Amino acid sequence: MNTPNVNGLTVAVEPDRDEHIVAAVEKAGATVTGLDDARVLVWIGGPDGFPDLPDTVEWVALKTAGIEGFVNAKVIDDRRIWTNASGFYAENVAEHALALLLSGLRQINTAVLRHWDKAIDPAVRTLRGSTVTIIGAGGIGASLIPRLHACGARVIAVNRSGRDVDGAEKTVPTSDLASVWSDTDHVVVAAPATPETHHLIDADVFAALGEHSWVVNVARGPLIDQAALYDALSAGEIAGAALDVTDPEPPAADDPLWSLPNVIITPHVANPSSGLTRELAPWVAENIRRFTAGEELLSVVTPDRAY
Amino acid sequence: MNTPNVNGLTVAVEPDRDEHIVAAVEKAGATVTGLDDARVLVWIGGPDGFPDLPDTVEWVALKTAGIEGFVNAKVIDDRRIWTNASGFYAENVAEHALALLLSGLRQINTAVLRHWDKAIDPAVRTLRGSTVTIIGAGGIGASLIPRLHACGARVIAVNRSGRDVDGAEKTVPTSDLASVWSDTDHVVVAAPATPETHHLIDADVFAALGEHSWVVNVARGPLIDQAALYDALSAGEIAGAALDVTDPEPPAADDPLWSLPNVIITPHVANPSSGLTRELAPWVAENIRRFTAGEELLSVVTPDRAY
Repeated sequence: MNTPNVNGLTVAVEPDRDEHIVAAVEKAGATVTGLDDARVLVWIGGPDGFPDLPDTVEWVALKTAGIEGFVNAKVIDDRRIWTNASGFYAENVAEHALALLLSGLRQINTAVLRHWDKAIDPAVRTLRGSTVTIIGAGGIGASLIPRLHACGARVIAVNRSGRDVDGAEKTVPTSDLASVWSDTDHVVVAAPATPETHHLIDADVFAALGEHSWVVNVARGPLIDQAALYDALSAGEIAGAALDVTDPEPPAADDPLWSLPNVIITPHVANPSSGLTRELAPWVAENIRRFTAGEELLSVVTPDRAY
Repeated sequence: MNTPNVNGLTVAVEPDRDEHIVAAVEKAGATVTGLDDARVLVWIGGPDGFPDLPDTVEWVALKTAGIEGFVNAKVIDDRRIWTNASGFYAENVAEHALALLLSGLRQINTAVLRHWDKAIDPAVRTLRGSTVTIIGAGGIGASLIPRLHACGARVIAVNRSGRDVDGAEKTVPTSDLASVWSDTDHVVVAAPATPETHHLIDADVFAALGEHSWVVNVARGPLIDQAALYDALSAGEIAGAALDVTDPEPPAADDPLWSLPNVIITPHVANPSSGLTRELAPWVAENIRRFTAGEELLSVVTPDRAY
């Protein structure tokens, strides 16, 4: 499998030599080689079967957005650069977050289940004029903010550092999370899953939110305390939840969440997987161009933060 | 009921003296009077019970967006100015149109009906990168275009005159409607109901659209040939339909539309009616200010076009 005479950057594409990725790598001027000859590994698989890396591999490009599986498998080390593809997914996920939020506010689920029930009308709410708090305003937040602004909503961003997020009316560090709820109408959870963000959205948060509030999760299920969510929804403490991710996935068939009228659950499809490598390929190529040119890579993983 | 000594503009608020509208009228410097003393009638009702108008009424402000009921009742004459409230509703309706379109593309209805069915994934489509044609790009179109742009979609506008619509990549007159379908991914119907727009979206249109196309209607049911729509949906000629309006409303309980998996129907709620006059009041006040100042009114009805 190894290429004896290589020109330019050497890139291994594993565990399968996906045609779209290979074409993009070659178009970027690099040569696809076996792992032993490669300075770069583009890994299209999950954590299972991840190879022992030769020291000659300087950069590993993972295809997923969330990398907790690789972190748990102790695959990620500090001896080379690791990138994920969170930047690639951000627009797709932001669009799904908006779809979930609008579906909730406009009660699409109720309309689907209860034909022409005018009773839903008085509770229909508009996104326009509301304030949406985005938890973990990274790439998804950057993509979501202009969409929310176009809909006439204000945005509060919450991130680890509290460093200002472009377009947000206010950016709050996670340590001050409790301060945002009185100004918040709706919440979009878009933060990475780390030990620090486990059950970040819990009973206290639901108690602090309004009865008209919708909670959207396009990140990872464990960021929300799902038992507390069920209690809050049942008690009418919040208006509803629209979730693309749950804990576990899927929820058990008899999970009472399924029976709540004010819950929308999509099966982890914020990021359409059809044609994935074809769409991902140009993004991989751009990062290869940057690596070759010595420029900063997109979506570099910070190992000690696990995202 | 008449006020003997009136200052400023005289305005009748009928058939009920709604508190929010009365307060707004008075705040705008006008005086609320009976109809016989009024230069302006703010009519909060429907066409039934509409009064014979004294010649002294110079302007009638209707509260609805679609005015076909008033046209059919032959209430609207050419002896004074008539306004509807279409400008007031545009943002709400545009938001609902976006909610319906995203719900279709992201298959929220399927997710609600078929729990965690991953089979929906390969067909999930994104609004980003698609071209949306807006039929009847007036106030709703003007509100919808920036929302679609923020989602990464391109917009083709179709209107009566073909006069360029701000923000649309292209504006096409209704007479050239057939030319837009080859460039169209999805359609939003937002045109007034007139004899000319009856069944504007028919079997020919569905045949010209793609198998991935969603059709959204937030205008009036009769703009779509609903029997042809059913056939196109059943045959898979188009991907789906998301309708806030139908013909008739509601569809009969045994209408086969209800049973199609690729249809979303909301019960004519694009425009939330809760708190309507409270929200409408400042808009009425702005028009009263304009009338007093001799400025152009918002949402003037053109009687011979019936919108």
